[in-house]
Amino acid sequence: MRVAVDALGTDSAPGPEVEGALAALSDAGDRLEIVLIGDEAEIERELSGYAGSVPRSQLSVIHAPDRILPSESPAAAVRRRPDSSIVRGIRLQKEGEVDAFVSAGSTGAVMAASLIFLRPLSGLDRPAIGTLLPTSRGATLMLDAGANVDCKPRHLHQFALLGQIYAQDLMGIETPRIALLNIGEEPEKGDELALESHALLRAEPRLNFIGNVEGRDIIGGRCDVLVCDGFVGNVLLKFYESVAEFIVSLLHEEMDRTGTQLDVHGAFRVLDYAEYGGAPLLGVNGVTIICHGSSTPRAVQNAIGVAVRAVDSQMVHHMAGELQRQGGAGEA
Amino acid sequence: MRVAVDALGTDSAPGPEVEGALAALSDAGDRLEIVLIGDEAEIERELSGYAGSVPRSQLSVIHAPDRILPSESPAAAVRRRPDSSIVRGIRLQKEGEVDAFVSAGSTGAVMAASLIFLRPLSGLDRPAIGTLLPTSRGATLMLDAGANVDCKPRHLHQFALLGQIYAQDLMGIETPRIALLNIGEEPEKGDELALESHALLRAEPRLNFIGNVEGRDIIGGRCDVLVCDGFVGNVLLKFYESVAEFIVSLLHEEMDRTGTQLDVHGAFRVLDYAEYGGAPLLGVNGVTIICHGSSTPRAVQNAIGVAVRAVDSQMVHHMAGELQRQGGAGEA
Repeated sequence: MRVAVDALGTDSAPGPEVEGALAALSDAGDRLEIVLIGDEAEIERELSGYAGSVPRSQLSVIHAPDRILPSESPAAAVRRRPDSSIVRGIRLQKEGEVDAFVSAGSTGAVMAASLIFLRPLSGLDRPAIGTLLPTSRGATLMLDAGANVDCKPRHLHQFALLGQIYAQDLMGIETPRIALLNIGEEPEKGDELALESHALLRAEPRLNFIGNVEGRDIIGGRCDVLVCDGFVGNVLLKFYESVAEFIVSLLHEEMDRTGTQLDVHGAFRVLDYAEYGGAPLLGVNGVTIICHGSSTPRAVQNAIGVAVRAVDSQMVHHMAGELQRQGGAGEA
Repeated sequence: MRVAVDALGTDSAPGPEVEGALAALSDAGDRLEIVLIGDEAEIERELSGYAGSVPRSQLSVIHAPDRILPSESPAAAVRRRPDSSIVRGIRLQKEGEVDAFVSAGSTGAVMAASLIFLRPLSGLDRPAIGTLLPTSRGATLMLDAGANVDCKPRHLHQFALLGQIYAQDLMGIETPRIALLNIGEEPEKGDELALESHALLRAEPRLNFIGNVEGRDIIGGRCDVLVCDGFVGNVLLKFYESVAEFIVSLLHEEMDRTGTQLDVHGAFRVLDYAEYGGAPLLGVNGVTIICHGSSTPRAVQNAIGVAVRAVDSQMVHHMAGELQRQGGAGEA
């Protein structure tokens, strides 16, 4: 299996990408090859720091030093810059040279390139970004985390089908609990989107739909897959990340003030996003994993691990099959 | 000034209401009178525990033992049950017998009664629930926190005007920073509602509109007033409350495991909702403060304090004036 890794993605690229790739190779053994895409000289300089421990037969470098910045208009940048690391990585996958692409670069550009070159799966209106939210009982996959706004009920229905496959193939949950993010537990609560989506999800025999989940229920791990519009999903995700940081900072202040020692990192390990790898773009003809710009080597390593599991489990094939069944059933 | 307090509101009513009312009276001195509305015998039993320290000249009790439950349909319950503590409290305000009403009962019923009996302010489409979110730099007023879904841009525009008055009158901020909750900082980011609301807010000369604020910016206290649709506001608020609880529980586990002592309550005081009092229903002809069903005596006390400041500052009068100016300007 070959995974391409954007080495112009993180804020301090290519350091975290190189270190993460080497760790992932060490995890996976012989069967994994990684292609680093970015500034060849910088990548080689970084690799030289690891000297003898680099398995060169499993690691290649493609020179594509053109970096698309998060501030650029994604679609325009993707169309205009064929030699950017993001476009090269996605096209390698399109051409069958690699099986997956991992990037901590511009989320918009990675998404745009995936849509343009890999294309959405047949029967799907809009691919979604899935993200794993840490909860008190493991992780919940929330989708959409920001790829789509102004969603229609049929989009949320499709997200639920995609999420179910992800939970089965990558989280190992045979019958995942699927829920709709809403402002009340009762089916008649919510905005128009929630009301109609609830009805669609409840009527879907392929889903173990457990109903609505409120903001207060997320952290308790009430569901395995949480479906929502990308606006609220994105607000929630970014808020979650920042509130965890804030609370850790309050704690450090109190420890400094009182001279107490506590293993904050250990206590909050469950909240560590790096442990969960990147966020998959679900619903395209390929495996695209999106990471934070601030990703650590460990986050890159875990994102590559997610890519490997997605390829191994044939996630995309399963999603395509599920969506075709949906088309055949003549869903709204 | 007279404030009515629903003594059938909290989960363990009337204990927290009685204790909170007595504390509020002690805060406010002679100028405050409180009317407790609920089961007279139970209230008197509770009061008897305080013996000599009850200022009976400032405290009266109205017998209205009919409790509207959160599970009931709010509008129907309000119309059918004139002797419920909620309807009695709101009607007392309507009739000028009291200046404000504080309740930890059914949010829906308190809202419905306020809309039916007090009426929305002229020029306002929909009143909003404001809630104070703890941040690293004090509190941010977020509205709407759940009274309205499927909002239109003009609603968010009105929320901003209401929020500005609240921040001026109750938070003491002369020129509050008003922001729109969105999924990107740029004006062209967001869903249809956010895009159009951004344009309306930016064009409003009466507001110090600082632009979009993302989920990750809330906790840093980037704005004083955060405007959003009640769906996302409600999800965010409930999530915030639960994540804080979760993190405290993780911390306790770690302290138990390691035998460390840390003043968690002290470290996280800034996150304590009880410190912020209740959530005002903004935009009705009166002062209605909504509290959590799980409110402590201190939360009730602070909610009464919020009611007192709202009356003192003539918040409702200021809001009515602002909305009339809006009507005159022929806003969309």
